[in-house]
Amino acid sequence: MTDGCTVTDPLQATGGGPRHGCPVLPARGVFRPLGLADVSLDGGFWGGRQEVNATATLAHCEEWMERVGWLANFDRVAEGSTGPDRPGWPFSDSEVYKLVEALCWEVGRSGAPTAETAIRRLTARIARAQDPDGYLNTCFGHSSQPARYSDLEHGHELYNTGHLLQAAVARLRTTGADGLVEVARRAADHVCGTFGADGRNGICGHPEIEVGLVELGRALGVDRYVEQAALFLERRGHGTLREMPLGRAYFQDDVPIRQADTWRGHAVRALYLSAAAVDVATDRDDRDLLDAVQRQWRHAVARRTYLTGGMGSRHQDEGFGEDWELPPDRAYCETCAGVASIMVSWRLFLATGDPRYTDLVERTLYNVVATSPSSDGRAFFYANPLHQRTPAASTAGAGVSPRAETGTRSAWFEVSCCPTNVARTLASLAGYVATTDDGGLQIHQYAPATIRTRLPDGQRLAVRVETDYPASGGIHVHVTEGSGQPWTLSLRVPAWAAGARLVHDGRSTPVTPGMATLHRAFQIGDVITLELPVRPRLSRPDRRIDAVRGCVAVERGPEVLCVESHDLPAGDAIDSLEIDPFVPPRDVDGVVRVRGRLAAPAVPEQDWPYPAAVDIAPAAVDIAPAAAGWFEVPLRPYHSWARRGPSSMRVWLPATRSHADGHSS
Amino acid sequence: MTDGCTVTDPLQATGGGPRHGCPVLPARGVFRPLGLADVSLDGGFWGGRQEVNATATLAHCEEWMERVGWLANFDRVAEGSTGPDRPGWPFSDSEVYKLVEALCWEVGRSGAPTAETAIRRLTARIARAQDPDGYLNTCFGHSSQPARYSDLEHGHELYNTGHLLQAAVARLRTTGADGLVEVARRAADHVCGTFGADGRNGICGHPEIEVGLVELGRALGVDRYVEQAALFLERRGHGTLREMPLGRAYFQDDVPIRQADTWRGHAVRALYLSAAAVDVATDRDDRDLLDAVQRQWRHAVARRTYLTGGMGSRHQDEGFGEDWELPPDRAYCETCAGVASIMVSWRLFLATGDPRYTDLVERTLYNVVATSPSSDGRAFFYANPLHQRTPAASTAGAGVSPRAETGTRSAWFEVSCCPTNVARTLASLAGYVATTDDGGLQIHQYAPATIRTRLPDGQRLAVRVETDYPASGGIHVHVTEGSGQPWTLSLRVPAWAAGARLVHDGRSTPVTPGMATLHRAFQIGDVITLELPVRPRLSRPDRRIDAVRGCVAVERGPEVLCVESHDLPAGDAIDSLEIDPFVPPRDVDGVVRVRGRLAAPAVPEQDWPYPAAVDIAPAAVDIAPAAAGWFEVPLRPYHSWARRGPSSMRVWLPATRSHADGHSS
Repeated sequence: MTDGCTVTDPLQATGGGPRHGCPVLPARGVFRPLGLADVSLDGGFWGGRQEVNATATLAHCEEWMERVGWLANFDRVAEGSTGPDRPGWPFSDSEVYKLVEALCWEVGRSGAPTAETAIRRLTARIARAQDPDGYLNTCFGHSSQPARYSDLEHGHELYNTGHLLQAAVARLRTTGADGLVEVARRAADHVCGTFGADGRNGICGHPEIEVGLVELGRALGVDRYVEQAALFLERRGHGTLREMPLGRAYFQDDVPIRQADTWRGHAVRALYLSAAAVDVATDRDDRDLLDAVQRQWRHAVARRTYLTGGMGSRHQDEGFGEDWELPPDRAYCETCAGVASIMVSWRLFLATGDPRYTDLVERTLYNVVATSPSSDGRAFFYANPLHQRTPAASTAGAGVSPRAETGTRSAWFEVSCCPTNVARTLASLAGYVATTDDGGLQIHQYAPATIRTRLPDGQRLAVRVETDYPASGGIHVHVTEGSGQPWTLSLRVPAWAAGARLVHDGRSTPVTPGMATLHRAFQIGDVITLELPVRPRLSRPDRRIDAVRGCVAVERGPEVLCVESHDLPAGDAIDSLEIDPFVPPRDVDGVVRVRGRLAAPAVPEQDWPYPAAVDIAPAAVDIAPAAAGWFEVPLRPYHSWARRGPSSMRVWLPATRSHADGHSS
Repeated sequence: MTDGCTVTDPLQATGGGPRHGCPVLPARGVFRPLGLADVSLDGGFWGGRQEVNATATLAHCEEWMERVGWLANFDRVAEGSTGPDRPGWPFSDSEVYKLVEALCWEVGRSGAPTAETAIRRLTARIARAQDPDGYLNTCFGHSSQPARYSDLEHGHELYNTGHLLQAAVARLRTTGADGLVEVARRAADHVCGTFGADGRNGICGHPEIEVGLVELGRALGVDRYVEQAALFLERRGHGTLREMPLGRAYFQDDVPIRQADTWRGHAVRALYLSAAAVDVATDRDDRDLLDAVQRQWRHAVARRTYLTGGMGSRHQDEGFGEDWELPPDRAYCETCAGVASIMVSWRLFLATGDPRYTDLVERTLYNVVATSPSSDGRAFFYANPLHQRTPAASTAGAGVSPRAETGTRSAWFEVSCCPTNVARTLASLAGYVATTDDGGLQIHQYAPATIRTRLPDGQRLAVRVETDYPASGGIHVHVTEGSGQPWTLSLRVPAWAAGARLVHDGRSTPVTPGMATLHRAFQIGDVITLELPVRPRLSRPDRRIDAVRGCVAVERGPEVLCVESHDLPAGDAIDSLEIDPFVPPRDVDGVVRVRGRLAAPAVPEQDWPYPAAVDIAPAAVDIAPAAAGWFEVPLRPYHSWARRGPSSMRVWLPATRSHADGHSS
């Protein structure tokens, strides 16, 4: 067995060592990612969340998995005592693996001994459940269980294995080979033996094995795993799986990935599949495949993505809807789809260097990933709608909910994919912050951070990023180590940041969205400041997004803002709010305010909600203002919604002076 | 066993004879319905559809049920050859019963011998499957099947029985007691024996048994059946059923019906339950229960109902959403929910005399029930959205679809509740047209028709209605029989019909929405004309219906209109249409036209659909008109959409001069 992180030359040569700590480590690409070994987040918006994740969420997840019996499922297999009463869905094994993955990144991030102990504790239970031939699953293949791979459409066996492999990759890249890696290697070999080119023509109903195989293949230097992933990718889209009521688009088995024009069907499935496709395309230099995923990304981002970066418009199939079908109230925007979207975009960025991808990573981090967990890291949103009509019944902490879709974060779900997905993303977040190329260092996400690396010419360099972004827009990069040789510092300027400036040596120069670069012989002590204009701004929807016609939204820096009923004078009156889009939003001490008014309730209540337009006197066209008239409506970051208790909430705000009903105001 | 239709005195005395032919025959109420024995529809919009139903749909349904094995399920039970491979959902028995019900009404309507033969053929197969103790179900209780009533939540056993009882009621009220009625009586007795006051505290996950029991109790004069229905009603809402992932509101077991403020959960379930509640409330003079249903109707109609009268905003649970959650594109508006809404509204009307209920009946008939079947009566919509973004793949006639939700009517569905529901409604439609009270005749739905009845004073009267409504608005009531004694003719004036006039004896008088009445000693040959203004009109949504903000819809008489891509010059450009609401729609030879224009496609395509509002130059606010500029956009009745082949379609039309994005046009 090869050691940890043997990678191909370019990375090996430039700091990508065995313990590099990267969630993704492609064989080639425009930029080379820096991992947890190179980058640490020091407090701030994300560092604080990493601490909560480390001290609360990880243990919370393990406790719940013990409580609901998902961990004991492994013991039962080991003991030969499986029965028909197995708790959990068929995919509950994957939650254990995702937790182990999160723990591995946490060890890589902080070296926390409690995390290390938990990894060993969990690995021991997992390893005991592995069959002699490498097969590992607690739901199939043992006494009183369906046969192995008897329900590829919905059984999630390969999906579970994929997450096991990702956990092993995290272990390899942070600590090194151990028993977990050995379990994963044997499981991967079993998959290749069963589903290889000469084996069964099968794929999993839920993509994930592919992304696990590629990364394990990279981490162990085993090409066969990458080949198996490519095989799974190519088999898909030909009706390989049996038909299901929602149609084969649900699991992307309707059209081959090279031919598809957009993402469709179940959002997490579509995105995990695409992440693997980028991996395969990159390592094999397969432009056709890479182009296909880029085309799908462009289409879906332009027409099937929420302002928050959230993806998935439909509850029915947790899926993408049609173009422009983006209802804010019924937005599904599963937290896991946000995580998966980041996986795809980061891979596309590394392959292409196009900062549109890292823009979407940032948007999704702040408005989907950051939204899910509660402040204490012990409750989570599963769905992330942009409009909550009525405050949820307060059920926080009341135990297991089917899914947390109703405006209250829940401690645990029956389908509890999101907490561990958030945990592994937060623990590995430093891996998405910066890259290098032959000429220098690029920083893509802004947070207080320490970054140390070595350029290909052997030059060591280190910078310290100081900022309270996104509260304010000043990003200060202090050079703390360097040889005095020239190199290029590149800083992402988000697409929204028109008017940004780069300040260095007492000079301030305007920079445009994209990458701002500065090439010079930096000296220790140099400070380069990127000034991003995080003043609040109004955004409007494409006219084809019917569900939010006539509305505007307020954004501030990377954060989407929202109005919550907590901040309205009349209590729960979110439905009667209307704002004046002609008065720019104001930012006073970090609280953004817009000019708004509330409608007085109709008296008497209308008994039919579709009056004749012609009967409406002009005076009645606009909302009849309440006694209070215009007032300043405070907005809060969307990610903080429902933290002060159940609320009604909306991101898209109806704007005044709409003449849509046929009269002037 | 009592004979057919023995009812309590008031109706018995006034024309409600044994073969009265009413779908609903309450013990008391403000008005007494006239049935198929009294009213016939003579061609026109509805008479034509009744003919298609009689000559195509009824046989189509029987053929499909034979083909997919739902009829053979009865034979298997009779032969003792049931196995684990039973075709169809647990509720497929109900489709057979609904077909028999439709056939019974058809015999009552036309006396068609083919329908009579079919009833006998089907009855024989059904009767053979009944167990000796009266239990009758092809999915439970026999070899290789789950035990009787082992899955009340989802097994639909009592639901199926309810439809059997409704079929028997149709037989009793059109032909008389026969073997079918005997089978139903024994099944009803078995239900009462099992679930009576001293029996099991159970209810069915899908209400329907209640409405069947009440009507069978009325038709046979068996109070015990009405009592059992009341018992089922009262048991519900206390968590009587086991919890399910969508919550107990799904099957209305969350709140007792007397306490609920609105309809919620699965729409058809909620509405069937309410229909039964009105029946029980009426016969028992239970004001509290009647008030509860009226309250729920008022709330749901004001806040949870589509312009079409359609109900059910969510695909996920086929359910009502929250207040104001009325997306046009994802409108579920199941055809069966339309049928069920008519059942409730007609019952409430008979109980209260409030024409708001018959207004909704009309709206739902024209825009939901009439929309479902194809012109040839051999394909059906299951869902009735108000916006189709892309033309469906043409799969008409391609066989069984899971459900017909995708813009093409389907010949049959796996969940095929709608075709038979349409069939029984169309065959019995004459039973929803007119009523009497002590003083005269009331006409509620307008169609070419012959109406004969006898008033309580013994006076016989008959009228012939001549009209081509809704093509034009003249309703001409010819008195063809009468004693010369004074009586009152009442004609419903729909809420939309501001400006209506009543013309008689050369005089034209304005009448307001509600009931227009004329009391006099009518003479044979008198003609009374109601002139309804069916000119096209614009309607706008309540400002709280977010999904259609900034849009208007066009209605004409009882018909909701829509724009289809077939009628746009650029082919499929429904997304780029914008209309001018300041120019009134014109009606030229029956085709309504509005002034509209099409947006030119954005070049280059936007890569992010939420631009900064401030960056939009005023010239770019409004849609850039295409070369053709303004043109006249034809609209068609919504019920006719997709009849010319797959199309994109919208009812709600974005209106120009919206300043929602912050600039004047």
